[in-house]
Amino acid sequence: MARVATEFSGKLGLRLPLIAAPMAGGPSTPDLVAACSAAGALGSFGFAYTQPDEMKRQAALVRAKTDRPFGINLFVSPQPGAIDPASQRSALEAVAAYYTEMNLAKPEAVKPPYAPDLEAQLAAVEEIKPAVFTVHLGGLKREQVQRFQAQGALVGGSANCVAEAKGLQAAGFDFVIAQGGEAGGHRGSYLRDPYQSLTGTLALARMIVEAVEIPVVAAGGIMDGAGIAAALALGAECAQMGTAFIPCPESGAAQAHKDLLVKLTEDETAITEKFSGKPARGLVNRFMKEMASSPQLAFPAQNALTGKLRQASARAGKPDFIALWAGQAAPLARALPAAELIAALEKETLRALKHLKGLVHES
Amino acid sequence: MARVATEFSGKLGLRLPLIAAPMAGGPSTPDLVAACSAAGALGSFGFAYTQPDEMKRQAALVRAKTDRPFGINLFVSPQPGAIDPASQRSALEAVAAYYTEMNLAKPEAVKPPYAPDLEAQLAAVEEIKPAVFTVHLGGLKREQVQRFQAQGALVGGSANCVAEAKGLQAAGFDFVIAQGGEAGGHRGSYLRDPYQSLTGTLALARMIVEAVEIPVVAAGGIMDGAGIAAALALGAECAQMGTAFIPCPESGAAQAHKDLLVKLTEDETAITEKFSGKPARGLVNRFMKEMASSPQLAFPAQNALTGKLRQASARAGKPDFIALWAGQAAPLARALPAAELIAALEKETLRALKHLKGLVHES
Repeated sequence: MARVATEFSGKLGLRLPLIAAPMAGGPSTPDLVAACSAAGALGSFGFAYTQPDEMKRQAALVRAKTDRPFGINLFVSPQPGAIDPASQRSALEAVAAYYTEMNLAKPEAVKPPYAPDLEAQLAAVEEIKPAVFTVHLGGLKREQVQRFQAQGALVGGSANCVAEAKGLQAAGFDFVIAQGGEAGGHRGSYLRDPYQSLTGTLALARMIVEAVEIPVVAAGGIMDGAGIAAALALGAECAQMGTAFIPCPESGAAQAHKDLLVKLTEDETAITEKFSGKPARGLVNRFMKEMASSPQLAFPAQNALTGKLRQASARAGKPDFIALWAGQAAPLARALPAAELIAALEKETLRALKHLKGLVHES
Repeated sequence: MARVATEFSGKLGLRLPLIAAPMAGGPSTPDLVAACSAAGALGSFGFAYTQPDEMKRQAALVRAKTDRPFGINLFVSPQPGAIDPASQRSALEAVAAYYTEMNLAKPEAVKPPYAPDLEAQLAAVEEIKPAVFTVHLGGLKREQVQRFQAQGALVGGSANCVAEAKGLQAAGFDFVIAQGGEAGGHRGSYLRDPYQSLTGTLALARMIVEAVEIPVVAAGGIMDGAGIAAALALGAECAQMGTAFIPCPESGAAQAHKDLLVKLTEDETAITEKFSGKPARGLVNRFMKEMASSPQLAFPAQNALTGKLRQASARAGKPDFIALWAGQAAPLARALPAAELIAALEKETLRALKHLKGLVHES
């Protein structure tokens, strides 16, 4: 059978130019990462909220199942310090009734650190030595990039605008992920107002391909082989897909989240800061609507504050308080095992490329 | 030389699957429409604010220059009735200082009709008999669609969501324009909240291609041949590009608008209702910023209210009060004559399709 390969996907030995996106907070389990990598995509861990020891444990689980390459992603935005009592109180009050509704004890004040220590996480990545290491919500210093490259990793960063892409290139990154406005989950913005950085994937990926020399991975709104072909047409070397993998049986997303995704007929997403403190795209639910004008803490303190509520909602099979991250093309989601999905994506990509070939008429 | 053709573009005898978007309020002059059509794209009139006699005059000017097909677009949203004095007063007060700044007389109260009569415009389209007739901001009744089809026109409508696309198909439309969130100018939304219908082109076009049987035209964020190839990869039969044609010498856009477009390095657009009363995407300028929380009239009364101000700003070469409509990929704009731009787009599309062909490796 024919294969679709770019220089970037060839370097990683992928069966098709596809990264299964890192999805922190549940979906990207070792099972999903291993299944994606074994099937020829690049499986990825979203380790934003994962402690170093757990990172190492999960990476070992993948290595026990497959020798194919995988990626690790970290959030690199700085954490805030201690929160003043008044802000803490109003943020707690805003969510208290939901804790009660879910039969949870009153939410407690959150204290730093609100998330794992970044330096310790970076050290864990150095130990794990993944084939690909990517960062979100910021860049890395040139020396840090070089340290991971010296271990053989391809190092990538996310850009929501041209300036972020150029900055990553200047810092020596191997590739840039153009995260279009369609993308589910956290917006990667750090140089511009995130609400002024919601440029659609088709526009953003093309602008970034034109602006930098390093390979571009297109992310946002890609759900099938036609989408992968479109990303390649824009000059991207690879597509990154997250939402498409959420309904997979190997994904650790809440069942209520999976069930909602495969029933959609329209884009029912919006951007919210209420789950974590940073803007992220997800399916609109009660929490997003009711909290719209309520106070919140800075990222990731708000994430710590809402943790028990999100978990209780997931356990109860109730979508009201789950962070239902999803991209705008979520209605194209399918509930397939990762290997079947990736095989389907490969066939669809080849079909789309064949269709395009047929549109050229020699005269 | 090779040609890129789809069934849709073949039916219209186009040199490449490209519609030069209808741009009301200035850009789409008879010169631009004629130049685009003569060069093998489908030139289009944006006649939203044009009186029937003027429509006929301009169409005749195009026919004097080329026998190639062209399109006409109308806005079909209903006009509001008379506006109550209090609303009128506050809307006038909100813009009064700008009128003074531009040495204009105080703005006057606006009265219905705020825009040309739609029935009379539809009758003019019947007289003109364009090859393509499209509507924005709504649909048409099945009988109306059939009346234009009986004259040989292909009839199209704009959709910002799947339901709008399905509705157009159900009413017998020949094709649907999937207007992604990247697109410049007025959002076409009419079934959903326009702010909940900002789905990116890559996501929206693919969802609509999957949801309907009729041909889909992809619009929004497409600025070059790679973008056209991406639209075709998504299964669209044609790309529609507006912003790319604004800097053309044949375009009637204000010089200040053209000059700004070709200097951009980032997406500097946002959605505003302040120029016309309906949400539209344009480059952020002083009017958009300062008016953000000011009162406005309903569409198209607000358009009538801001008319003299916009014109004076354009005459003065001052971008502050011009509606600087632009899509999110505007930084890719080039100032070329329409025929040169279209020749470049054709070459780029062929190059992109050749690149894609080269990514398939037989094993």
